[in-house]
Amino acid sequence: MEAIRWKDSALYLLDQTRLPAEERWLRYTDHQEVANAIKTMVVRGAPAIGIAAAYATVLAAQENACKANFPAAMSRAKETLAASRPTAVNLFWALDRMEKLWLAVGPDLPRLETEARAIHREDVQMNETMGKAGAELVPQGARILAHCNAGALATGGYGTALGVIRAAHALGKVSMVYADETRPLLQGARLTAYELVKDQIPVTLICDDMAGCLMAQGKIDMVVVGCDRMAANGDFANKIGTYSLAVLAKHHGIPFYTALPSSTIDLSIPDGSHIPVEQRGGEEVTGFAGVPTGPAGVQTWNPAFDVTPHELLTAVITERGVLRPPFDRELAGRKAD
Amino acid sequence: MEAIRWKDSALYLLDQTRLPAEERWLRYTDHQEVANAIKTMVVRGAPAIGIAAAYATVLAAQENACKANFPAAMSRAKETLAASRPTAVNLFWALDRMEKLWLAVGPDLPRLETEARAIHREDVQMNETMGKAGAELVPQGARILAHCNAGALATGGYGTALGVIRAAHALGKVSMVYADETRPLLQGARLTAYELVKDQIPVTLICDDMAGCLMAQGKIDMVVVGCDRMAANGDFANKIGTYSLAVLAKHHGIPFYTALPSSTIDLSIPDGSHIPVEQRGGEEVTGFAGVPTGPAGVQTWNPAFDVTPHELLTAVITERGVLRPPFDRELAGRKAD
Repeated sequence: MEAIRWKDSALYLLDQTRLPAEERWLRYTDHQEVANAIKTMVVRGAPAIGIAAAYATVLAAQENACKANFPAAMSRAKETLAASRPTAVNLFWALDRMEKLWLAVGPDLPRLETEARAIHREDVQMNETMGKAGAELVPQGARILAHCNAGALATGGYGTALGVIRAAHALGKVSMVYADETRPLLQGARLTAYELVKDQIPVTLICDDMAGCLMAQGKIDMVVVGCDRMAANGDFANKIGTYSLAVLAKHHGIPFYTALPSSTIDLSIPDGSHIPVEQRGGEEVTGFAGVPTGPAGVQTWNPAFDVTPHELLTAVITERGVLRPPFDRELAGRKAD
Repeated sequence: MEAIRWKDSALYLLDQTRLPAEERWLRYTDHQEVANAIKTMVVRGAPAIGIAAAYATVLAAQENACKANFPAAMSRAKETLAASRPTAVNLFWALDRMEKLWLAVGPDLPRLETEARAIHREDVQMNETMGKAGAELVPQGARILAHCNAGALATGGYGTALGVIRAAHALGKVSMVYADETRPLLQGARLTAYELVKDQIPVTLICDDMAGCLMAQGKIDMVVVGCDRMAANGDFANKIGTYSLAVLAKHHGIPFYTALPSSTIDLSIPDGSHIPVEQRGGEEVTGFAGVPTGPAGVQTWNPAFDVTPHELLTAVITERGVLRPPFDRELAGRKAD
């Protein structure tokens, strides 16, 4: 399963706002439209956003190849893309990597395209590698709780947290995946359950407020989630609701993992308090898919992410292996670049 | 605000499955239809179910008044009503109370009607009394987290947990109520937010997975929830998600209260493991307000309630005052009958 394709100088995105009801691919040739696709979550998931942004800079280079001041035009394009969503650091990482190249080679479209494809390919490889590393942590017959979607759809393919689950399932270790539906946008119900049903991995969908009860009944052996940005001390931002699960896992003595590629690590910030958390519109909370549920006039609070302190993490699964506390030392040693 | 009326020998229920979009009253003259209304949650909330069931026995008495074997017919009616929902004990309490009377007086419709009205009136009075008692626990400027709906709509009027909030608000103590939307049936969004907006009590709607983050940010001073059944040791069943909130509150050092009338206390069971928890259909989880969200073929898990152990409770608010640990001794002393 994949959600991002590059073909004939255009970017194709599987519209994740329509899944699972409709599998619709959208074609992009304008970098500003890609910025908008990131904002409206046609494409979402930290690694996938980075990949889409990398391809969007190739579109921007196509648009601006003949401009007198190519670097200035590209700098504006970078700003537009960087302004799409603030929390996932992979976006900024991918833009910086592409910028280094276009500053060096100018509007060399084949080389820029090759670099974006490399970012995409490397992400899939990293997922497969971290999947194997993480699968070793999964006990035989495991019942695993997942939140949001950190799967093939959130990445270049295969997935981070779901990559671990896929690899463990291939080893015959997974007896059940419990997927939190993940309000407000229901990525767990719409995307994770959809991916797992397609791959014939056993999956049970629950509402977010059922996770604690499930743990209390002894039905969860481990929790594995994705990550949108990890600070130098191991604090990390992920989809809203992750923090609650971490506290619940701690209370029940259940191992709690996050899986992420090195591009998600941000050593420039010392801890989670420096991660900017995106606030989204109240209409996501007062209804779903256009169906209103809350009364008119109600106030809302809608942070897209929360920050989980590193103390609640059992281990961090990366393409460079499994990191154990103290995370600050481990992260400093394993960051990619 | 009220959701239950008795008029001209008929029971009227405000259809809570349609709120807040539509305020539709349904008329009942057949006890079996009331049993069905309880099952399908036209009326819900432990105290409200008890009241509706009491009135339903008056309907059954009307139906069976001329039957040769009135007690046997009433016994069958009682069984039908008791089979509607298993968890809330108020249902069984109200049926037992009405049964005592019909066994004593037979088909004396005015006396049966008077008794059902008394159950209804006493519930409102108990709510007002526990509201006053609970309001003393609320600090000035309180930001209070509520789950599901334990309000006027869940009771004879005024509410248990929302009764405490109403009483505290009347004293000028409440700066904000945060209402969990409460998946799967969204009683927080549809009913609690609706009640509070109507009463001009400040309310902010959140998704269930946001509560932990809100607590971590220091935005919650106390949690108060309702109760569907409390065992002799203080363990209690309430809407699914309550247990997670109790663990989260404990982790953050936030006081956690439940408010309930004595009719919700079940001294016949020693602890929460004896409370039967209703499992409901998967379609509540695979869709959201009628919009399908999960993929075809996904499994589900849908307990309507969870059980919170008494260790996580700061105090119990009842019409007979505020109970503190050890709850077993306190409960034995304060049970109504």
